[in-house]
Amino acid sequence: MNHTKNDSLYLEDLHVGQRFASSEYELSAEQIKAFAAQFDPQPFHLDDAAAQNTLFHGLAASGWHTAAITMRLLVTGNMRFGAGTIGLGGEIAWLLPVRPGDRLRVESEITDITPSRTKADRGVVTVRNVTFNQDGHEVQRLIAKLLVFRRSG
Amino acid sequence: MNHTKNDSLYLEDLHVGQRFASSEYELSAEQIKAFAAQFDPQPFHLDDAAAQNTLFHGLAASGWHTAAITMRLLVTGNMRFGAGTIGLGGEIAWLLPVRPGDRLRVESEITDITPSRTKADRGVVTVRNVTFNQDGHEVQRLIAKLLVFRRSG
Repeated sequence: MNHTKNDSLYLEDLHVGQRFASSEYELSAEQIKAFAAQFDPQPFHLDDAAAQNTLFHGLAASGWHTAAITMRLLVTGNMRFGAGTIGLGGEIAWLLPVRPGDRLRVESEITDITPSRTKADRGVVTVRNVTFNQDGHEVQRLIAKLLVFRRSG
Repeated sequence: MNHTKNDSLYLEDLHVGQRFASSEYELSAEQIKAFAAQFDPQPFHLDDAAAQNTLFHGLAASGWHTAAITMRLLVTGNMRFGAGTIGLGGEIAWLLPVRPGDRLRVESEITDITPSRTKADRGVVTVRNVTFNQDGHEVQRLIAKLLVFRRSG
């Protein structure tokens, strides 16, 4: 990893196999419940007692909350692209529940770089992002397709 | 697990081609900025003026915000599963920017039902969820894999 925090990355700076690591984000029960109240109001995300009687056997973060935290870790980390981190889409999988007090971090690896056939200034970069908890267990995998620009002029 | 809510859907209630439609959710500039400040702090999601000079040419919601709103519309709509809406993962694509004042709604269709080979009480249901804006344009497609239970004995 040879990019400092203030460097912006452009298409010509990237190669398949390039890796990045994020900082950590610690998640509280209050944050889990607040996100869920807004976006995923289900008992296993909202209420400790009610969550005991569900598949999760205790409070767990919404998968979309884990995804949003993953995005924060990516955007505030060292994988900074010149025009921003612009996602076209991707594939996501939730592997384990995220619990109050978990500390999440993301490891990213570029797995494909496809220059645009029609627009010379850009390309699509595929990044495999694995979100880990503090025990080193994978909680989410996200294969993201990002729009990345070349350095201009 | 409480499988007895009588307005809930179970694996045996579902068929491929079954469709659901959500209510609407109107999104404000303040909500776009608040979500972005927490989870996707980039100029095109945070600040109207700065957003003008980006690919988005104006303030746009984080894709993860659109995804989270889509989840809210699903969970509070009529596609309610007995044990909850439990996502294993899926494929997501963002097609158009979501703007302040947009009114989002979701149309869902079941595209596959695969009973578990090892656990008789459950299966994986694939649902294609298209999020539309108030002009009827597709802003997001989400092919979600959900864990759905059978009605218990």
